[in-house]
Amino acid sequence: MRQRKIYDMKKVAILGSTGSIGVQTLNVIRRHQDLFQVEVLVAGSNAELLVSQAREFNPNVVVIADKAKYSLVNDALADTDVKVFAGEESVADVVTMESIDIVMAAIVGFAGLRPTLKAIRAGKVIALANKETMVVAGAVVTEEASRHGVPILPVDSEHSAIFQTLQGEYHNRIDRILLTASGGSLRGRKREELMDVSLEQVLKHPNWSMGRKVTIDSASLMNKGLEVIEAKWLFGVEADRIEVLVHPQSIVHSMVQFEDGSIKAQIGTTTMETPIQYALCYPHRVESFLPRFSFYEHPELTFMRPDTDTFRCLPLAYSAISRGGNIPCVMNAANEVAVQRFIDGKLRFIDIADFVANAMEKASFIASPSLDDLFECDRVTREICTSSK
Amino acid sequence: MRQRKIYDMKKVAILGSTGSIGVQTLNVIRRHQDLFQVEVLVAGSNAELLVSQAREFNPNVVVIADKAKYSLVNDALADTDVKVFAGEESVADVVTMESIDIVMAAIVGFAGLRPTLKAIRAGKVIALANKETMVVAGAVVTEEASRHGVPILPVDSEHSAIFQTLQGEYHNRIDRILLTASGGSLRGRKREELMDVSLEQVLKHPNWSMGRKVTIDSASLMNKGLEVIEAKWLFGVEADRIEVLVHPQSIVHSMVQFEDGSIKAQIGTTTMETPIQYALCYPHRVESFLPRFSFYEHPELTFMRPDTDTFRCLPLAYSAISRGGNIPCVMNAANEVAVQRFIDGKLRFIDIADFVANAMEKASFIASPSLDDLFECDRVTREICTSSK
Repeated sequence: MRQRKIYDMKKVAILGSTGSIGVQTLNVIRRHQDLFQVEVLVAGSNAELLVSQAREFNPNVVVIADKAKYSLVNDALADTDVKVFAGEESVADVVTMESIDIVMAAIVGFAGLRPTLKAIRAGKVIALANKETMVVAGAVVTEEASRHGVPILPVDSEHSAIFQTLQGEYHNRIDRILLTASGGSLRGRKREELMDVSLEQVLKHPNWSMGRKVTIDSASLMNKGLEVIEAKWLFGVEADRIEVLVHPQSIVHSMVQFEDGSIKAQIGTTTMETPIQYALCYPHRVESFLPRFSFYEHPELTFMRPDTDTFRCLPLAYSAISRGGNIPCVMNAANEVAVQRFIDGKLRFIDIADFVANAMEKASFIASPSLDDLFECDRVTREICTSSK
Repeated sequence: MRQRKIYDMKKVAILGSTGSIGVQTLNVIRRHQDLFQVEVLVAGSNAELLVSQAREFNPNVVVIADKAKYSLVNDALADTDVKVFAGEESVADVVTMESIDIVMAAIVGFAGLRPTLKAIRAGKVIALANKETMVVAGAVVTEEASRHGVPILPVDSEHSAIFQTLQGEYHNRIDRILLTASGGSLRGRKREELMDVSLEQVLKHPNWSMGRKVTIDSASLMNKGLEVIEAKWLFGVEADRIEVLVHPQSIVHSMVQFEDGSIKAQIGTTTMETPIQYALCYPHRVESFLPRFSFYEHPELTFMRPDTDTFRCLPLAYSAISRGGNIPCVMNAANEVAVQRFIDGKLRFIDIADFVANAMEKASFIASPSLDDLFECDRVTREICTSSK
């Protein structure tokens, strides 16, 4: 109970409230109603869930990005005080509301970039669950955050782990980041075994309950590649000091090795609610009300090298960082298209890496892209990729 | 090289320079001659090694506790500027020298308490490798350290690990300390297999190269019991929040679980030079010049419950904490006698716990012992234990 009085109630905006991270953020807030108040909920198109969340958490404002769903949401909340808006412009506008203390940026994919940047420029603390923001525009985003004095608190379990191990260590040089990877649903399989892998098989993640896009990226190791790029920007570490370590149990969420050889790790159950709560409460830790992690239930932890011959999206990501400029943006856009094609049954899982590599090879290189350059690069890449056979 | 200019050269006194921790402390200093200067070396009776250390590190003063060795040391260093003293009083006096910045308290056993306390009262930073100081006189020592504003930096690998994980977390409550234990040389054996275990077998520690007393305590789990008591005082945590976790690989050096369920761990190679260097350099980390820990060489970490039916010294230590007062002092003294008897072939390994338990049962209880009470309690316990059949 001690921590309960340390700080004022935080007013939270959740971008992507009906997605996996959004729902789990509301789980955390439900258990800590004395610490948080939901000020804004933003959803893409899931009107039903948005309405039910609004009825439960009574926010000041809700936004549904899909304009076609406006009436549905507005009518359903007509008997409440909740203000309802719709459309992408409203999403970007609402994050600047003065009453917001912290923005949970949990819109999946490139779409999360614009509102996150608006929130940074409005001086809001960012809990960052959208990795594409950093992958595509890491240079711009970190510069803007620094200019506006805005802390970016990572929500990805790996980056939260790294962030947690770095507490009290900011005066010490990072020798290596050890980014752990479960290996996803297809770990241990070889290239020839992946020729006909189905969407259903790919979606069976052994440890984590996540959204569809992230689960597929996890199986291809593209998710880990995106995380390497995100870590580079969040922690100011070059990619050659970021090492991916396969750890099938997903218990050690990531580690940092310092100059003296000492490694610090963050360990726990595989629930996103822990890193979500850490970001929301930072720098405080409060009771989680979740079952306590015990080593007696997880008596064995193993570690191994990633199989980069089979899962070629990971080396692709390192190559994107090393080329720099707009190439990570191209990689991300091409991957989003490729994953959608795989979901739609139009691309084999095994061909995702080639599809993305092909887009990266064909892209016009921009060494220091502006934000507009990046938006244009994203648009063009998607157009080319979508129209390709 | 960055860290090299951050702080002035530290002048170090090493109490117990010819012991295992002392020798390793000098290894660290040998690699960092730009950071440290050896001001004082104190040894028990190993005159030859003390002389050779003095010739290499050129301290201001050396002390040999064994007065009979004075001439030997003094003659051997006659052609140097090194001042030579002898006797227990000189050991306690020398730590108050104004030129000393930090004292490595590495005298094994109860003998380490008096000079460590003198150093605390003289305002010296303490790197504490002598766990008996805290076990016997934790209440007095922490109170004195607090009164004199003296930081006590743990050197035991487990306590160093806990201390490292607590950096940047002092505003957060500790839910549990997970104190890891290799299980020592006899892990996995049952009571009936330990009836005739030899000194040689006990001294074969699987992971750590340590002194003889510590290696025997490690096999009996008394070492872990002493560490539980030490952790209670160093980190202000009650014993019921300190859990011993057997981890045969000794790679995870210990962990802390916080209120949110999150666990932070410190991990690395099994060399005492890392925690020694951390204490000497604290809060900075510098290059260790040791081989880097890699998970590819240690791909599997396992964890299990301690077998407290077989290794009864561990529950004895919990019982000593729970009874409090002078009982941990009694336990420690009785254990030192028991270990010596085992070394001398006068007590079976399996009987160490009974020997200690018997002393604890027979002791007169003092609820709030003064330091004099503790010295007297230690003396009387040893006398009774030594004279017992």
